[in-house]
Amino acid sequence: MSGTLTVVGLGPGDPRYLTPEADAALTSAHALYGYGPYLDRVPQRAGQTRLASDNREERGRAVAALDRAAEGARVAIVSGGDPGVFAMAAAVCEAIETGPEAWRALDVAFVPGITAMLAVAARIGAPLGHDFCALSLSDNLKPWELIERRLDAAAGAGFVIALYNPVSRARPWQFGNALALLGRHLPPATPVVFGRAVGRPDECVEVMTLDAADGKNADMATLVIVGSRETRVITRPGKSPLVYTPRAAVEVNA
Amino acid sequence: MSGTLTVVGLGPGDPRYLTPEADAALTSAHALYGYGPYLDRVPQRAGQTRLASDNREERGRAVAALDRAAEGARVAIVSGGDPGVFAMAAAVCEAIETGPEAWRALDVAFVPGITAMLAVAARIGAPLGHDFCALSLSDNLKPWELIERRLDAAAGAGFVIALYNPVSRARPWQFGNALALLGRHLPPATPVVFGRAVGRPDECVEVMTLDAADGKNADMATLVIVGSRETRVITRPGKSPLVYTPRAAVEVNA
Repeated sequence: MSGTLTVVGLGPGDPRYLTPEADAALTSAHALYGYGPYLDRVPQRAGQTRLASDNREERGRAVAALDRAAEGARVAIVSGGDPGVFAMAAAVCEAIETGPEAWRALDVAFVPGITAMLAVAARIGAPLGHDFCALSLSDNLKPWELIERRLDAAAGAGFVIALYNPVSRARPWQFGNALALLGRHLPPATPVVFGRAVGRPDECVEVMTLDAADGKNADMATLVIVGSRETRVITRPGKSPLVYTPRAAVEVNA
Repeated sequence: MSGTLTVVGLGPGDPRYLTPEADAALTSAHALYGYGPYLDRVPQRAGQTRLASDNREERGRAVAALDRAAEGARVAIVSGGDPGVFAMAAAVCEAIETGPEAWRALDVAFVPGITAMLAVAARIGAPLGHDFCALSLSDNLKPWELIERRLDAAAGAGFVIALYNPVSRARPWQFGNALALLGRHLPPATPVVFGRAVGRPDECVEVMTLDAADGKNADMATLVIVGSRETRVITRPGKSPLVYTPRAAVEVNA
């Protein structure tokens, strides 16, 4: 019997974002691995085991799941959003590269999902309508100087910037510093979108200007989109504003 | 009667990527607008009208759909991938901003989808596993000099780069020039992923090194992912290689 490992993207957390491909992978698995709150989103099925682990235990979770698959089981690792964007897919690849040779013979698959920046963007209009980048603000796995260098490069060249992991208990000042750095490149009125818990009951999506945005506006579950010089806000009477970045860009020298 | 407009992401082109939210929006619409090949992916339903238009007619399609919604219809515009990523959502926002005041009172919604870079990445591992950017190579709507500046900034700062619209009949040389430019920042062995028609019968996903990649390897339906200095390839006996970018990055000065 030959085991398999599938890394499954659940999307932002409501079943209406779960693709049929992801649903099929979850249904057919013998064992599910994942961060507890993500596993809790998957309906319980008879005969299926589930092993929850802490959010920071990505490597250990990947190793445990690969071990189980190597024993012959059909294993799924669940990931919020898309597993390939600051999530479990890279941790699984790292474990395969450094693990036993037998793991390279396993059938491994990745099922894409709606990542947070796409869900937040869709709630507010089309802020990612032109060139953009996605950057994790966590300096657990890279030096803060590299994050600053990337923020400088992205804002200076006119990319819209989606910020993942803006804040955590162990990283209280980084997001405020990032906003201050971006303020040296971008006008004070640049739109900044804060999206929290999209598709869940406590969903909250807000637009502020860069000069009014504050490190305190985000927490661990927030995805932040900082506009470019081209990003626009459409006010609508009695409705929430639309934020979008036009398809055309003219400015070469920001 | 109050009309609505929903801009719906179909994902990469196979029903297994279509979210339940997108499916519901397509089912309940009175009228569907879109580029012909995208509309062809949506099952025909009795009583539903459909209006196909050319791929380059984004603005005209948005205006026609908004007009129809303003008359009271439930209208859906279909978009390949995610509507907010180089697709219809920004065109709709542009039309609302410059159109009649009544369009600002319409209920407008955007339904996210699996965009091409996520689908291609999932097929090959986790090339977008760390900071990345998404860039359209089309110089129809921005000067080529701006594209070069963004490629320089992104590669110089260590972002993985997803290239949308690499080539078209009217833009034969741009992709080759972009590869040459990236070759000045990145080692010859940098992995480059070419993904074409993911989820469709003619799907093809290939990995090459940057020095072997050629402008001729892509066409209009190709999504290209150019790795960073950190991106790695895992060879597997009897299986396709995995390409991934580790979660940790160390290099500050590339």
